[in-house]
This record gives sequence, C-alpha cells and structure tokens, in this order.
Amino acid sequence: MRRTVFNEDHEAFRSTIREFIADEVTPVYQDWEHAGHAPRDFYYKLGELGIFGIEVPEEYGGAGETSFKYNAVITEECARAGVSFGGSGVHTALCLPYLMKYANAEQKKRWLPAFVSGEMMTAIAMTEPGTGSDLAGMKTTAKLSEDGTHYVLNGAKTFITGGVLADRVLVCARTSPATPEDRRAGISILVVDTTSEGYAVGRKLEKLGLKSSDTAELSFTDVKVPVEDLLGEEGKAFGYLAHNLPQERLGIALGAYAQAAAAIRFATEYVKERTVFGRTVAEFQNTKFVLADCKAEVDAAQAVVDRALEAHDIGDLTAADAASAKLFCTEVAARVIDKCLQLHGGYGYMMEYPIARLYADTRVSRIYGGTSEVMRSIIAKSMGL
Amino acid sequence: MRRTVFNEDHEAFRSTIREFIADEVTPVYQDWEHAGHAPRDFYYKLGELGIFGIEVPEEYGGAGETSFKYNAVITEECARAGVSFGGSGVHTALCLPYLMKYANAEQKKRWLPAFVSGEMMTAIAMTEPGTGSDLAGMKTTAKLSEDGTHYVLNGAKTFITGGVLADRVLVCARTSPATPEDRRAGISILVVDTTSEGYAVGRKLEKLGLKSSDTAELSFTDVKVPVEDLLGEEGKAFGYLAHNLPQERLGIALGAYAQAAAAIRFATEYVKERTVFGRTVAEFQNTKFVLADCKAEVDAAQAVVDRALEAHDIGDLTAADAASAKLFCTEVAARVIDKCLQLHGGYGYMMEYPIARLYADTRVSRIYGGTSEVMRSIIAKSMGL
Amino acid sequence: MRRTVFNEDHEAFRSTIREFIADEVTPVYQDWEHAGHAPRDFYYKLGELGIFGIEVPEEYGGAGETSFKYNAVITEECARAGVSFGGSGVHTALCLPYLMKYANAEQKKRWLPAFVSGEMMTAIAMTEPGTGSDLAGMKTTAKLSEDGTHYVLNGAKTFITGGVLADRVLVCARTSPATPEDRRAGISILVVDTTSEGYAVGRKLEKLGLKSSDTAELSFTDVKVPVEDLLGEEGKAFGYLAHNLPQERLGIALGAYAQAAAAIRFATEYVKERTVFGRTVAEFQNTKFVLADCKAEVDAAQAVVDRALEAHDIGDLTAADAASAKLFCTEVAARVIDKCLQLHGGYGYMMEYPIARLYADTRVSRIYGGTSEVMRSIIAKSMGL
Amino acid sequence: MRRTVFNEDHEAFRSTIREFIADEVTPVYQDWEHAGHAPRDFYYKLGELGIFGIEVPEEYGGAGETSFKYNAVITEECARAGVSFGGSGVHTALCLPYLMKYANAEQKKRWLPAFVSGEMMTAIAMTEPGTGSDLAGMKTTAKLSEDGTHYVLNGAKTFITGGVLADRVLVCARTSPATPEDRRAGISILVVDTTSEGYAVGRKLEKLGLKSSDTAELSFTDVKVPVEDLLGEEGKAFGYLAHNLPQERLGIALGAYAQAAAAIRFATEYVKERTVFGRTVAEFQNTKFVLADCKAEVDAAQAVVDRALEAHDIGDLTAADAASAKLFCTEVAARVIDKCLQLHGGYGYMMEYPIARLYADTRVSRIYGGTSEVMRSIIAKSMGL
Repeated sequence: MRRTVFNEDHEAFRSTIREFIADEVTPVYQDWEHAGHAPRDFYYKLGELGIFGIEVPEEYGGAGETSFKYNAVITEECARAGVSFGGSGVHTALCLPYLMKYANAEQKKRWLPAFVSGEMMTAIAMTEPGTGSDLAGMKTTAKLSEDGTHYVLNGAKTFITGGVLADRVLVCARTSPATPEDRRAGISILVVDTTSEGYAVGRKLEKLGLKSSDTAELSFTDVKVPVEDLLGEEGKAFGYLAHNLPQERLGIALGAYAQAAAAIRFATEYVKERTVFGRTVAEFQNTKFVLADCKAEVDAAQAVVDRALEAHDIGDLTAADAASAKLFCTEVAARVIDKCLQLHGGYGYMMEYPIARLYADTRVSRIYGGTSEVMRSIIAKSMGL
Repeated sequence: MRRTVFNEDHEAFRSTIREFIADEVTPVYQDWEHAGHAPRDFYYKLGELGIFGIEVPEEYGGAGETSFKYNAVITEECARAGVSFGGSGVHTALCLPYLMKYANAEQKKRWLPAFVSGEMMTAIAMTEPGTGSDLAGMKTTAKLSEDGTHYVLNGAKTFITGGVLADRVLVCARTSPATPEDRRAGISILVVDTTSEGYAVGRKLEKLGLKSSDTAELSFTDVKVPVEDLLGEEGKAFGYLAHNLPQERLGIALGAYAQAAAAIRFATEYVKERTVFGRTVAEFQNTKFVLADCKAEVDAAQAVVDRALEAHDIGDLTAADAASAKLFCTEVAARVIDKCLQLHGGYGYMMEYPIARLYADTRVSRIYGGTSEVMRSIIAKSMGL
Repeated sequence: MRRTVFNEDHEAFRSTIREFIADEVTPVYQDWEHAGHAPRDFYYKLGELGIFGIEVPEEYGGAGETSFKYNAVITEECARAGVSFGGSGVHTALCLPYLMKYANAEQKKRWLPAFVSGEMMTAIAMTEPGTGSDLAGMKTTAKLSEDGTHYVLNGAKTFITGGVLADRVLVCARTSPATPEDRRAGISILVVDTTSEGYAVGRKLEKLGLKSSDTAELSFTDVKVPVEDLLGEEGKAFGYLAHNLPQERLGIALGAYAQAAAAIRFATEYVKERTVFGRTVAEFQNTKFVLADCKAEVDAAQAVVDRALEAHDIGDLTAADAASAKLFCTEVAARVIDKCLQLHGGYGYMMEYPIARLYADTRVSRIYGGTSEVMRSIIAKSMGL
Repeated sequence: MRRTVFNEDHEAFRSTIREFIADEVTPVYQDWEHAGHAPRDFYYKLGELGIFGIEVPEEYGGAGETSFKYNAVITEECARAGVSFGGSGVHTALCLPYLMKYANAEQKKRWLPAFVSGEMMTAIAMTEPGTGSDLAGMKTTAKLSEDGTHYVLNGAKTFITGGVLADRVLVCARTSPATPEDRRAGISILVVDTTSEGYAVGRKLEKLGLKSSDTAELSFTDVKVPVEDLLGEEGKAFGYLAHNLPQERLGIALGAYAQAAAAIRFATEYVKERTVFGRTVAEFQNTKFVLADCKAEVDAAQAVVDRALEAHDIGDLTAADAASAKLFCTEVAARVIDKCLQLHGGYGYMMEYPIARLYADTRVSRIYGGTSEVMRSIIAKSMGL
C-alpha cells in the first residue's frame, strides 16, 4: 500500500542515504564485521553528512529537525542494505535525546558541536551484570566528594554498545540509596569522559550478530567525574530513562520492520535467479505462498510503524503503543527472516549472504530495549490486567 | 493507538448501531441461531433504520453516502457484540455494489427503493457444487429464448448466504460458452425473482458457525428470466465480479479484526471476574502475557484495516492490498480468538458464551471471499512471482 | 512407521469395532448430533458387544482384560470415523476405574453386572459453577444424617457429560470442611441414584462440538444417599481423583492423536477427488506440503501415545508424562485439523463433512481433563520449576 | 519418560564420551570456533578413543558394532554439551557407510585402518554451486583416460564440510552423460587423494554457525584419479547416495532433538540462578510455561528418534519415516532453542553462552541433508500425493 508517512524531503534524504550506503558501507561491510566495529573515520564521515545533527538545533551545528522521520529513514535504509552504521545508532537514537532534554546550556555548548561532528562519540551504560531489565537494582555508585567538586564512580556495566570507541559514556549510577518508598529513587546520569583514570573497557563481547558494532563491559574504579558532567538533576535519572523508552522502542520496531522487508527483497531476488530441478525456485507454489505470507506480515508491520511514527511526531505515542509496536514488529521480523533464509537453502547459512546477517542481527531485537516479556507486561498493564 | 479513520458522524452512527444491537439483536440472538436465520421482520427494521440505503442515492430513498466507513462501523459493531444481522450482510456488502454500478436507470428505479426498505432482499449465487473459487468453470446456463424476451436458466448453486429468504438472487450463469482464448468470457448476471417457476431452494446447509444466516443450495429448472432482468452487459460478468472483490475482502478483513478485538474484550472481562485457586484468572502472568500478545496483533490488524479503509475511500486499494489485509486479519482473528476462548476454560466451549460463537463464526473468514490460498496467489503475483 | 504397540488380538478387536461403527453409528450419527445424545438403546448394544466390560473381572460379566490398549483401540476407531459413542466414554474411561478400585465387594456385586450390560449408565460430577480445575474449592456438601444411615446432599455441578441419561452419578462432595493444613481434605464420592428425590437435571448445555454427548448441569436439594453408596473411604476422594488422572489424560491424548490422523485421512481423500482450475487439489505443491507437515506432526503424536501406552500398561506412566502427552497431542490435533479443514475449502465449513465435526469436537481436548495451562504447571513442577 | 532404547553398554559408552568431552573439548571449544576447525591432533585422539571404528569390522581395527545407537550416543553427548567434534561427523556418519558398503576388499584393506586411526580423514563432495539438492544436475566430470588407468576429474564443489582438513574426499562426478530415460544415470564416486595435483581447496566458507567445522569450496583441474580409487560400480552412485540418506537424516534428527534437550537444560539452569526484580527468573509463570511447552515438544522428539532408532537397527526405517523424523525434530529444535535463548535475555545473545551457539548451529539442520522442503516432498509422495 502506498505509504503516506514520508514527504518529498524525507524521500530526497532517503536517496542520499541509500547512495552513501552503497558507496561507503556495503563494499567494506564484511571488513567491519571481522574487525568487530566500524572504523573511527567512518564516524567523521557520518558527522560530515549531517547524520548526527539532524535533531540538534542549528546553533550547535545541527539541522534543527523535530521529526523523528529522518531517523526512521536512516534505520530503514541500513536495514534495506543489510548493514548498520556500527555502534553509532546508540549515539543518535539513545544518547542524543538525553543530551537534548537534560543538558544545561553550558553542557550543550560544550558537547553538542563535537557530538554533531563525530568528534565526541557517545554511548550509554545502564545494564549491569546481574540486573538486566531491572534498572532499579543497579549497584554502580557515584559518591559526591567531600569538597563537592566531583563524583567518585565505582562499579561495572555490561552490554555497552559503542562502548569500545566512545569518547563519552552516559553512565547511570546510584548517587544515593533507594528509599523504602521508592526503589527507583537515587539514580543519576554522569557523562563520563572515557579517558578518565580508573575508567576501563573490559572484555569486548562476542555477539551472535551485530558484529560491526562494538559491545563491551566497562568498569569504573574511583573514577573522578566533575559535577559539571552530571546530566539533569541528581537522583532523577529513572524518570529520564523511562521518558525516552517509547522512541527507542519505536526505533527498534522500525528497524525490525525494515529488516523483514529487506529479507523479502533478498529472498525474492534469490528465488528468481536460482534454478533447481530445471525451474527457478520462484516457480514453486511453496515459494510463492511463503513469500506472500511474509509480505502480508510485513505490510502489517509497515502499517504499525507508520501509524506510530505519525503519533510520535505529534507527541501521541504512549508507552503501551510503543511496546505493542516493538513486540509485534520484532516477532514479525523473526518469522519472516527465518522463512526468507530458508528459501536461500544452503546459501542462507553463509555469512556472505545478507540474509544470514539479518538472521543473526535481528535476534537481539526481541531482547534489547526491553525484552518481549517486558513489552507484554507493559501492554497488559495498559489493559488493566 | 488513537484511531483517526472515523469522524464525528461515523461515531454518532456507531452509537445508534450499538444501541440498536443491544435492544433488538443481542436479547434474541440465540433464537435466531436456533432458527437458522433472522426473522423476516428484522430486515424491515434494518430498512427503516436506513442500514440498506447508506450508499444508495437519495432519489431512490437512500442516504447517498460514498464512504465505505459506515459499513465498516456496522461490521465492527456486530462483531463487537458477537452477533450478525443474519444474511443481510450479503444484501448490502455484496449485492448492492453490482446494482449500483451495473443496473440501468429503469432497473434502479424498479429495484432500489424496495432494496432500501427491506422489501426486496437480495443474495448472490456464484459458487457451484464442484467449482469453488474457479468461477470460470461454472456450468449453470442461461439461454436466450428464440423470441429474445427471456433467458431460460438451468443449473445449480451452493453456499448461497441469504438464499432461503431472498426475494431476488443475482445468479451468475453462462449465456455463451467459454472461448478458446478466454475461458472467463460468456458469463452474465441475471437478477432472478425467487418466486419464478422452476426456481427451487434446496437443502439448507448446516454450517459450523454463522448459524443465524441462512445458507442454501439453489436449483434452476427452465426458469424464465425476462431480459429486462439482465444486469449490465451480456457476457461481461467475470469482470464485474473481479471489480468488487477488493471491497468485499476489505469487509471481511474488518470483520475479522473486529471479531478479534471483541474476543479480547470478552476474555478480559471474563478473567477479571473469574477466580480460580483463590485469585482472579487475570492475576496469572500467563493470562496477562497471552492477552498482551493478542492485543499487539489486534493493534496491528487495526492499523491494517484503517489504512486500507482510507485507501479504499480514495479509490487506492489494489487487489493485492485487499488480499494482504484479508489474509493478515483473518489469520490474526484465528489465533486471537482461539487464545481468548482458551482463557475461558470450559465456559469457552459453551455456545451461550459469545467467545464460542466467535470461534465457530470466524473460521469461515479464511475461506469465503476467496480462501487464504487464493489471497497468497494474488499477493505473490503482485510481487512478480 | 510400523506400530509395535498392538498385537493380533487388539487388531482383531479393531476390526470388530470398525465394522460396528460403520454399521451402527456412522449412518445415524447426524441424527444423534441433532438429538444431542445417543439413543438409550445404543448403550445396550455397546453392552452386548462387550465394550463396557473389557476391564471388568469375569465374575461380574466382564472380560477381565488389564491392558488399556483395548480402550485405546475404541478411541482410535471412533476418531477415525469422526464419531463418538455418545456420552459413554465417561462411563468406561472415567467412572469404571473408580468403581474397580474403590468399590467394596458388595458394591461391585450390586453395580458391575448392570454397568457391563449398559443397564446402569454412569457419569461423574466434579466441576462446579465457579470452581473449574480447582477441585478443592468445591461447595457441594454431603452431611451424614443423625442416625448415620445416609448422607444429605446439597449443591450443584456443571459440565457433566452423560449427565442427562445417567442412572448413577459419582458425585464429589464435601463430607467435612477443608482443614487449615490441607484444603484438599474432606471430599468424598457418593454414587448417587439419579431417580432420588431432590436430584434434578438442570439445563442441557449447548456445546461448540461433541453434540452427540449430553452435557448438563445437575442440582441436589436434600438428596438422601444411603451410606452404602459411599465409594471408598470418607474424605479421601481428592487422592482418588488424582490417581486416575494420568489414564484419563492418556485417553484424551490418544483421542486427539486419532482425530488428527483422521483429519489427514479425510483431507487426503478430499484433495484427490476434488478438482479446481483443471487439476486435483492434491496436485498443488501447497496441498502436498501442508499434508506432509500434518503427517510429520501426527507421526510424532503417534510415537508419543504409543510410548505412553506401553508405559501405562506396566504402571510406569507418571503424572508429568501424561500431562506432556496430553499437551502435545492436543496441540498437534488443533493445528492439524485446522489445516485439513482449510484444504476442504467451503465444504470444510459444512457440518455434513466429518472434518467440520472434528474441528468443533477437538477444541475441548485442550480444556477438559485439565486445561493446557494445568498441564504446563504439572510439567514445570516435574522440571523443578 | 524412561527411555528403553539404550542398554547398559550404550550407557557405559555414554559416560566415556561425556567425560572425554568435558576434559578434551569443552575447555578449548571457543578456540576451535575462532580457528574455524578442530586441531588435526584431535582427530588422532578420536581415533585412539575408538570413535571412528565403532562400525568397522575388527579385521580393519574397528569394533564391529552393527547398531547405530553408539553413533546416536555421540551425537547426543556433543549436543548436550553444546559442542561438536569439528568436521569429523562427516567422516563417520556420511563417508563410512559408503566405504563399508561399496569399497572392495583391496580398498578396505588399503583405507579402513587409516580411517579408523584418524590418519586418513574423509569428506564427501556432492553439492555444486548452482545445483543444491538437485544432484542429477551436477556438472563435475570424470573422464576415463585412453589407457584406462585413471579418471581425469574437472569441476567444482561447494559446502564441503571437513573439506579443508580431509585426506581423501569422496567426489561425486559424471563419468558419463545423463541418458534421456534417466537423468540420474552416469554418476560415480571417486575417493580422491587431496594431495593430488590439480586438487585445490578454495575459499573457506564463513557460516552462521557450526564454526568449529571447516567448510570449503573445492576445485578440480585435470586431477588424475587412479581407477583403483573408484568406489563401487561406475555410473551407479545416484543409487548409492539415496541408500544412505535415511541414516543421515536420522542422525540429523537425533542431533536436533539433543540440541533442543540441551537448550532446555541450559535454560533451566540459567533461570534458576538468575534473579530479576527480586525473584529468580524461574519463579515467573511465563518461564515455567515456556519451558513446559519446550519439554512437551522435546519429549515428543525423543519418542520419534527412539522409535526411529529401533526401526533403523532392524532395517525398517523407510525414506519417508526418516524424512518425517528429520522434519519434525529440526522444527522442534528451532522453536525450542529460540525460546530457551529468549529466557537468557541479553546473555542469550553472547557467544560465550552455549545457547547462542546452539541457536546458530541448529539453523542449518533444516537445510542440510535435504531441506525441510525436500522432506515434505518425500513425505507427500509416500502419502500418494
């Protein structure tokens, strides 16, 4: 069905991105995967292209856009090509909203221009070994020094995407203990300089997929963080984190939809070219039916994300709506990509085929940004259950 | 997510319909199911309420609406209450579009006022024993008499919803043999008076569900049909039939979506009231998760039908889009209603609970209006497969 | 795969049963469905055939068999033909084990001969409105009279299969309140004469399927039950009920497997005969693949029930094994029968086709004998979860 | 349910294997995965342990066992630990049956002792780029030299597991063209020395999983193969290949079953240890239900493979039975492993957790040894479709 969600500007931007990916990413992508991350230089290219500044006000070097749709276009185009921009999705999709909303004027002036140019790459560190989705249970602490000039940060984080290459990491830490009434109280965000003493990047984690994005464990041993690097108010971070989740989940839903659409594209091309028993694979009724089933599901996913995008742009996307979109689209992606891989036969198992990458990459989308189980809990709550 | 597809007029209409159903249908619906059809009088009530005339021009006693959304509202409200308007869905959803588009001025004047009032109930007879979805293979014939005043109709039809009570039936018949180049050529539609000699209603078919709509076999033995009752041009019916299919399938998709939404409503109410092992069923995590899964699928189905409704109103709904919507929504309904029945335990198996009726009713939606297999073929074709 | 579970005697018995069904059941089965039960006479025929006495010792007129496999054969043959022996499954599969194990010598002598001949049809009443699977929550009471000669029974039961025609009903009732340590204590079984004063058959329940078995509500108002009709020891019934559950669930698993196998048989016959677009339905690759998928699942279900049958005959079938078999086989039946119905197109929705009956009948198998949710709880417990 | 398929000898063997894996494989397995293959030395250890000689007659240094159950034990134990014996599964499971059945006395004497000791590792080369499951379409040729002393082999093969380290490769090649009556005629097997001139190992293929087994492309340019290295009769290979397929597929079914069982084991351990929101993951009802569903499916898979093992040992396993077992068990494994990974949350996506390896490894089991689509075709054929 004709999509109505993107206008001419978005489509022009799409063409730019598509060309950029074809020129700068696809040809070298397997190298990135083997290296485990995109090269540092690539982030400067993205900065130059304006990718990091879309939503940043013009005074800090950005484009000042307020619609999430440009980000949606990037997500779709990466998925379409079966690639990613390394760990930089975190930089714009996860970190920027916090900086935009909670950084004070001085911090914005200090950070945003470097953020936009790619000079200051960011990551965010929430999860700890042993806590998972239960953020309130975190054990990393940041104690204010006696002279009140800095925090002393101690603890460990894990699953930090972009954690190897980041220049600044938004670290969530307890600045005061949970209170009996509210175990979510007392958590703050510090924007930690990764060159600080006591800051260490631990093991680089080997993942099932997303091989071109670096994921690491981090540890902090008496890291001194100036109070000027506290983001927003002390103790309020739990609320901040909750606030950005719908957009994050919409982004994952979009990515999942686009991966599924890409899988259909790859499979359709494959089955038309490939012959077996004297016919193209496309000529078998099973092939037609499987791809038609995939198409109907992806059409639905598209309807879901398009509706959610419109709602989000007018501030109307609830937590439950976002959870519903993420749950649905990631389940669709899992089913569709599995079927499209199957249509590739043995080639589907070879990493040189993008469908194999999609299969490995998409698996995490039912886990990160809140697992499908967490999504179900959110939806059920909104139903009064 | 907030729906944007219906305006205030639609919602006012929805209130009227909801009230009408609560007053006139729900209290007596089990009687209709036992009788196998709605009482004849009920159709006059529908006529009075204006249900049959929504899309009929004002000169023939209708309201002259051009949007399909009013019909969508009726479909949704019936499904919401777990009822139907007997076989009259066929009257407006299937027969009316043919009369509106292909009847000539004289025929419109002769038929539409009675159509609108409920005096002339209609049905449509396409399927024959042994042909199923393969319309071109039909064997019923209509031979022009030597004097050219009437056709002589012979043959048999099956699965005719509304066939027992109909006053006029749109019968598809071969007026000339298929040609070697085009096996679809030579089929015409006759609007047959059911009181004609030689016209017989055969067995009333006992169905798994949809018990309040009469479904029958028809047979024609030398039935004389005046040439004035030929609809549109002779031999062109195959094209006519194809033309209305997207709207018919959108209607089925809508109904399936609304049935699934109703199932969630019934199950949510049930699990909140029902206690087992000292807790309400709603308190079990499994209940929450199952209903959340259902909700995410129904949200997606809603996004699909809403988008399709908008597209249809501006003439933009392709055959493949409609097939995709029907396939997706009917599969969702099957899954969701099955799960919601399960949450009812033993009560879900009792026909007095609307969930049991929904389960039996919804099964046909993957079959009629073109099976899911036919939908897959249409979608695959649109993908170049 | 060749089955090794049945020997020559079983197969000879199978032939007898198959012939009996073809002669005495299939030709009149739709009448039974319309009537809502099998005719009383039919039960005498079953008695004559020896069906009710297979496991009853010879001294009471039975055959004294100890293997459950004869019952398995009957279950399979009924499902194969898409019929049932009315509500009499309960008579042998559910009631007999209690009578055999807990009746004293006097009771056996009094009841078993009439049980075997069909003169005394039995049913069992556990479930109450509002308790479902939570038997310990039952509210029906049986108070011993002051003179100790009889119990006074008060309360209501629902979902009682065979409840309309039964001569004796095994009623579970509280003879003393639950204790704080054990809410399962204090429940007894009374073998109530259905002609007693105060015993009333309430509404006959209209079910989605299983139309040939009568299901009713029962109510008891000061029904006097002689103490001689207490089965086993007072207050021990909960343990009795638990004891027979594995066999009951194995029986349901068997039935579900056999229904699924029957569905494949019906669908295979149908698709080979039925032509559409100039080919038999069997010639389409989708048909082949769908039926092959069904076959692989039914092969697995057969392996499961055959293994469970062998284990049961040597007393080795645990509660968790039986739960696993029931859960698996009923889920398989649901999927397989749905697919096989779909292959029938519109005919699959017509009750005159056995596939439609199977679809409606099989739905209850995921609910009765303990829901799938209860099965999951049992299995999980056995895994130490 | 208690398994009856293995006797004491098998269980003693199982203990040996389990210990060997714990000592020699698990501790170094991630190194093998990074290297892309097991070290050459490991194969000598397997030889020493007697793994390669189980079914080889004693005169050639083997143990002379005729039951496939020992192989089944190895498969189960590898899967249980989430490891593999590198590419050596091919050596025993695929290559050995050909050597045992078709090698002549001289060849057996020449090859089997080295086969047993691990000195001569073997692989088999059937698939070609562009042919997939359609073996009759192969293009590799082997022309007899004019003097009749050797064949000249030309062509290319792909997806050759064990292809990098093999000493001898069983290469399928056309020794004469297909005949009009039989396109399967004219294919022979040559046992090619991999040190021959013109024999080249092409790219090592990077796979989604099975990282510890080397998979390669092979190319042959005028490779001279002595006629003494022809296996069996010229032109008869297609029949040979078909003959071993049931056992190969049973082996894959077994592996898939065992992987799924291992996934449950890993997940059960994980959820019992891991706490979230103050409770272990195991305490959530969803966890219990998901694992119970997995258990019921794996119980069924076990019943299937055990029955098939018994049938195979008495020569009773048909092609359709094996196809059914493979189709069913690999589908079960896909579902179960996916669910068990999900229960691990973010850790499930980390390759250091065996569940992540299982997820990647198991995907190929629906593809190799004949895809699920090929299995469906075989089953359908056996149903007369």
